[in-house]
Amino acid sequence: MSLILAEISDGIGTITLNHDIKRNALSEQLVHAIAATLADFREAGARVAILRAQPGAKVWSAGHDVAELPLGGLDPLGWQDPLRMLIREVEAFPAPVIALIEGSVWGGACELVFACDMIVATPEATFAATPAKLGVPYNATGLLTFLNAAPPHIAKELLFTSRPMTAARLERQGIINHVVPLAEISEFTHDMAQTIAHNSPLAIGVMKEQLRILAAAHALSPADFERIQGLRRVVYNSRDYAEGINAFKEKRKPVYLGE
Amino acid sequence: MSLILAEISDGIGTITLNHDIKRNALSEQLVHAIAATLADFREAGARVAILRAQPGAKVWSAGHDVAELPLGGLDPLGWQDPLRMLIREVEAFPAPVIALIEGSVWGGACELVFACDMIVATPEATFAATPAKLGVPYNATGLLTFLNAAPPHIAKELLFTSRPMTAARLERQGIINHVVPLAEISEFTHDMAQTIAHNSPLAIGVMKEQLRILAAAHALSPADFERIQGLRRVVYNSRDYAEGINAFKEKRKPVYLGE
Amino acid sequence: MSLILAEISDGIGTITLNHDIKRNALSEQLVHAIAATLADFREAGARVAILRAQPGAKVWSAGHDVAELPLGGLDPLGWQDPLRMLIREVEAFPAPVIALIEGSVWGGACELVFACDMIVATPEATFAATPAKLGVPYNATGLLTFLNAAPPHIAKELLFTSRPMTAARLERQGIINHVVPLAEISEFTHDMAQTIAHNSPLAIGVMKEQLRILAAAHALSPADFERIQGLRRVVYNSRDYAEGINAFKEKRKPVYLGE
Amino acid sequence: MSLILAEISDGIGTITLNHDIKRNALSEQLVHAIAATLADFREAGARVAILRAQPGAKVWSAGHDVAELPLGGLDPLGWQDPLRMLIREVEAFPAPVIALIEGSVWGGACELVFACDMIVATPEATFAATPAKLGVPYNATGLLTFLNAAPPHIAKELLFTSRPMTAARLERQGIINHVVPLAEISEFTHDMAQTIAHNSPLAIGVMKEQLRILAAAHALSPADFERIQGLRRVVYNSRDYAEGINAFKEKRKPVYLGE
Amino acid sequence: MSLILAEISDGIGTITLNHDIKRNALSEQLVHAIAATLADFREAGARVAILRAQPGAKVWSAGHDVAELPLGGLDPLGWQDPLRMLIREVEAFPAPVIALIEGSVWGGACELVFACDMIVATPEATFAATPAKLGVPYNATGLLTFLNAAPPHIAKELLFTSRPMTAARLERQGIINHVVPLAEISEFTHDMAQTIAHNSPLAIGVMKEQLRILAAAHALSPADFERIQGLRRVVYNSRDYAEGINAFKEKRKPVYLGE
Amino acid sequence: MSLILAEISDGIGTITLNHDIKRNALSEQLVHAIAATLADFREAGARVAILRAQPGAKVWSAGHDVAELPLGGLDPLGWQDPLRMLIREVEAFPAPVIALIEGSVWGGACELVFACDMIVATPEATFAATPAKLGVPYNATGLLTFLNAAPPHIAKELLFTSRPMTAARLERQGIINHVVPLAEISEFTHDMAQTIAHNSPLAIGVMKEQLRILAAAHALSPADFERIQGLRRVVYNSRDYAEGINAFKEKRKPVYLGE
Ligand code: NI
Ligand code: NI
Ligand code: NI
Repeated sequence: MSLILAEISDGIGTITLNHDIKRNALSEQLVHAIAATLADFREAGARVAILRAQPGAKVWSAGHDVAELPLGGLDPLGWQDPLRMLIREVEAFPAPVIALIEGSVWGGACELVFACDMIVATPEATFAATPAKLGVPYNATGLLTFLNAAPPHIAKELLFTSRPMTAARLERQGIINHVVPLAEISEFTHDMAQTIAHNSPLAIGVMKEQLRILAAAHALSPADFERIQGLRRVVYNSRDYAEGINAFKEKRKPVYLGE
Repeated sequence: MSLILAEISDGIGTITLNHDIKRNALSEQLVHAIAATLADFREAGARVAILRAQPGAKVWSAGHDVAELPLGGLDPLGWQDPLRMLIREVEAFPAPVIALIEGSVWGGACELVFACDMIVATPEATFAATPAKLGVPYNATGLLTFLNAAPPHIAKELLFTSRPMTAARLERQGIINHVVPLAEISEFTHDMAQTIAHNSPLAIGVMKEQLRILAAAHALSPADFERIQGLRRVVYNSRDYAEGINAFKEKRKPVYLGE
Repeated sequence: MSLILAEISDGIGTITLNHDIKRNALSEQLVHAIAATLADFREAGARVAILRAQPGAKVWSAGHDVAELPLGGLDPLGWQDPLRMLIREVEAFPAPVIALIEGSVWGGACELVFACDMIVATPEATFAATPAKLGVPYNATGLLTFLNAAPPHIAKELLFTSRPMTAARLERQGIINHVVPLAEISEFTHDMAQTIAHNSPLAIGVMKEQLRILAAAHALSPADFERIQGLRRVVYNSRDYAEGINAFKEKRKPVYLGE
Repeated sequence: MSLILAEISDGIGTITLNHDIKRNALSEQLVHAIAATLADFREAGARVAILRAQPGAKVWSAGHDVAELPLGGLDPLGWQDPLRMLIREVEAFPAPVIALIEGSVWGGACELVFACDMIVATPEATFAATPAKLGVPYNATGLLTFLNAAPPHIAKELLFTSRPMTAARLERQGIINHVVPLAEISEFTHDMAQTIAHNSPLAIGVMKEQLRILAAAHALSPADFERIQGLRRVVYNSRDYAEGINAFKEKRKPVYLGE
Repeated sequence: MSLILAEISDGIGTITLNHDIKRNALSEQLVHAIAATLADFREAGARVAILRAQPGAKVWSAGHDVAELPLGGLDPLGWQDPLRMLIREVEAFPAPVIALIEGSVWGGACELVFACDMIVATPEATFAATPAKLGVPYNATGLLTFLNAAPPHIAKELLFTSRPMTAARLERQGIINHVVPLAEISEFTHDMAQTIAHNSPLAIGVMKEQLRILAAAHALSPADFERIQGLRRVVYNSRDYAEGINAFKEKRKPVYLGE
Repeated sequence: MSLILAEISDGIGTITLNHDIKRNALSEQLVHAIAATLADFREAGARVAILRAQPGAKVWSAGHDVAELPLGGLDPLGWQDPLRMLIREVEAFPAPVIALIEGSVWGGACELVFACDMIVATPEATFAATPAKLGVPYNATGLLTFLNAAPPHIAKELLFTSRPMTAARLERQGIINHVVPLAEISEFTHDMAQTIAHNSPLAIGVMKEQLRILAAAHALSPADFERIQGLRRVVYNSRDYAEGINAFKEKRKPVYLGE
């Protein structure tokens, strides 16, 4: 069975995450499947893409496949990390990507959803950004996704507490576009997609690209950046980093010592 | 009859758009009239300006005068485009500008309102950003106005769908300051203006200028910018661009082919 | 009696402002006391800090100690100004700082609260940013705190009107994280702090530092900055600046002439 | 006869401009030929490339093919202009490109040579940057090539006078690496190339890319850039612009009126 | 007698410093005279300007009029400082400014010369940048003028030793364009000016403006800048600052204590 | 025997590299010794520092202690690398640092010398930047040191060929301040230091800090930087990287395969 399902009609491409066993974890394989499909959509002239889970999914996506994270000594969020690649694919896709969310969204999947152009969610959907719980030193472009999608105090609450937030709360803060009951969400989203598909794809493409560049334009000096990388290296080489990964795998609470 | 009406009293300048026939379209003439009035207000030591339409207006402003847009081959949003000049006038005005909105706001007029310092609107007011519908490749400073005024997902919904949003929704997202019933909006706005007028105009002026500079400080390398300009040129030289303008003038739906 | 009270337990440090007579004004002395306590917390390995006033406080903090502001001729918000130092201490503290607010927050104390990582407030709390009322030319990093915490139109309303806003309104705009009834706010905040304290302090520390750098990365050319400093110098050398300070001390309304 | 000759041996690729009739003008065709050859070199694992004219050439390259410049109304140096594409190809080539110069270098060919990684020239070689003589409003990335290669006062002398400078003078100013007599220059350059070819191509590739990015990192706000584009548009729409192109074609001196 | 002499012919404007008694110190009055003349030249359509001293001058300019520097407590190089204004006038003048130098150039006059577009000097000319000798904390845009004109190690030798450098040395480092014997320098410079005057003034104007913006584009975060201003304030409020000014006026060597 | 010798008199601190056996390689131990001495100098109020080797040294410094470089899998030039720390110490030292060079300077020691504020060298001194020979992917701040000290084409020749350049050539390109015969260099440098020591240390300190910040202000977006780090990671994880280190240790020529 394939990890994702893809279809395109009337200029609307739909990708359905279909790896329920792994709770749609963003494994390297899954990410490649999405990237390949987005490339197909692009070639087929899709004017909008919808990214969703199977109707009825309890977990929209569990985020990183923790089994793929290095145990230490290596930057877990380097340029070739599957999550980082996927975020770039979504941002580079020349048409809008709408995230359609039911179920819970965890960890790196939060960033994926925030990196989509628009978000529609059911009232029951929840979002939990978990790097602090797992002990992973998130990276600058990843944090910028949060900072661009959410008011800073809300972004910090998400990132520092790792607690789930409801779709309703995220909608009030301008992060989610619409909260729509489960029964209506597919049609609602399709309708929004159709409106977009009738607009000028060239104008939309060049606006999306400009918005991407403007939102990314929080430039740092090389020294600031290398200092950050140095701080992150201390973390992923720490005892606590390994503890976080191990505790997750052993399904127990991690005990962090700050070292 | 003049395109706008202007008056100033107690340090509060008021500009009333008065070109109902053209639905207050932001033609070169209208823009020059507003710029001249803002210059007068400045000289008269105005401490705040209110920008409004005639009471009872159905359309606050229809945005660009589409008749003035070039049919292709030329950047429709260059430095001397009337909308771009008007945005700069509002930003450079040394006192706060409050937009008082009743009726619907279309296209470039959305950006104008968003570029004002504060926005007060009636519950019936609506906002529709239409470059995607018209096929116009919006420019970087224009998109930055949206990105600074609205949470990114909301900005993208406005820009990619071209659908109108209600004042209530924009107020919840922090874009509009206050939604006030039609019967009270003039007095409410005047009251807010009066409060500002009693504060220190020097302190306000220097804060407004700093906020303008900080909000604009999303710097790009020249190469990024020239690439963007190249992408925009492809769009305004395209078949679709002419189709959008023509369809608008012929009052029919455009058919976009993505070429 | 000491200006602040400090305690730490279970990795949660709490600073209680305790200078009711001066309405917890951010005097040099008070700021040094907070800075010293944050240094202690850091050494003690605190994983989160709570900044609050005494239960029952009418005024959370009155902001700058106006008696300490220079009467003119000198930048009132230079690098060594107590408020500016305090903001940097909060931003540099390697663990999250939660502001727990009851009572009213005035002037520079607004920026202090906005600079905290998360904010919890009672429904009765209010926030009034008063530089325009007092005639003080706020500085660029200070304005950036507002611009990062609040949607721009809301930030401008706060700064240009100096009117108090309610906690409820700020919560809707994503500035405040939670509005919690007085009876529950201490426990609610402690609970949030506890959650943070169990997460990885290393991962949180490096994320906070990156978010600080990214949010500050609105870079200006030296010429833009020196121009701003020149504009601000005109203001703090003006007649109006002295009028604002004097009126405040004499508890009368200032009369601003714009000169 | 082909516009260029290409060969590769021992990891050293050599491109010889071979269009003497047109004085190796950088026509669209010639640029595509170079780009294709660089792509071949890349695939063949070339560790260094040499760009040269035929031994004995009087003119190394005459720069833009003026016949291809638009007569007005259009940016003559847009993203898809052949010169701009060629500069990007040289900068993006993952191995060093050495320019070997005999004869005179004119106009846009100056920028091409300056954009190469190293320059070796005969004592007789001369360089004349002619946009001011031709009346063309050079663009920002093009000017950055000059500013990065030459001390600013020298860059301005080149650009504002359009006078030829000798290889000796450019060598003294650090623009040219070595001046070598005609009889020895081929061997000298081959020797330098060989040294590079024995070094680590991976280390060199990543250093070249970082140097490219650092040198380009003179970021502007979108408003600064759009203002520049507006100023340039005034120029290429001017009477003088057409006069410059026409005078060149008619082989007479242009008469500029400043309008 | 007027402080400067001005004439314009054939599109070449010449300003001759004529205040030998004060060694052409850049007093507020002199700066205003130059600014007014540049404005006249601009109106008259000058295509190039030459800035020179009287033939035979021993001192080209002594730099700041030290009598005008504040004795402490105030930024001596604020936005309205005469030197800073003059630098901006030269940079904003829409045609090239050539500095023709005989005699010695001191202090702020060094920056003025470096800010000109091209420099021609006699072999006897010397340049001494004296802020370190005088104890003045130079400002960021001023230092950027040095950094853009000179290789950094040379800039630092100039600034940290305050020793005079010869025209020959500056020419070798690309700072001065040409060293020309006294007998020939006027004709040589006039000849260079004439060449420029025949080129396209529009193309030159837009290139000069772009080069100005690119060279200034070394952007800093507001926090970096405010820290710098704080460091500078410590210096101009120090005992040493007053000592430097006083010693200069008393024509004795200053004794610096570092406090 | 100590790795370095230190003395201070008349405000002039001198550090003499004294580890001839290891050819003054910049080992962690040596770097700590220099850092500690600079801290002592700072406390003692040194107004200038001289960094030199023992008179008669054949090798001024061999650069990195290659034995300390990781064999792969780890960034060899991370934030805590001894060379990177040393560069920061020199840049942060509040007084000028003069490099006095006799003998040859290799690898990372080149960057160290370039990072000093001024350089004086004997005619026999040579400089060889060897990362390409050794196969090490230099980092962004390190390359910026080269780009700031040397004209780009010269910097690339140094970095891409790894060939030694003479002091005479570097002096002509503005990289070295003075070439002075061996017999006179100590006195010459002491004399320069004395001049600096009599100038205002406060003015010099704040100018050095501003120049540091301005030169570093080549800001990148986080995405650009993370891409660079990804490219560098590919290199230090490559077969060629290990080959370079091993060949150096085995004193044989490396054979690079580009993989
Ligand atoms: Ni926001
Ligand atoms: Ni931003
Ligand atoms: Ni630069």
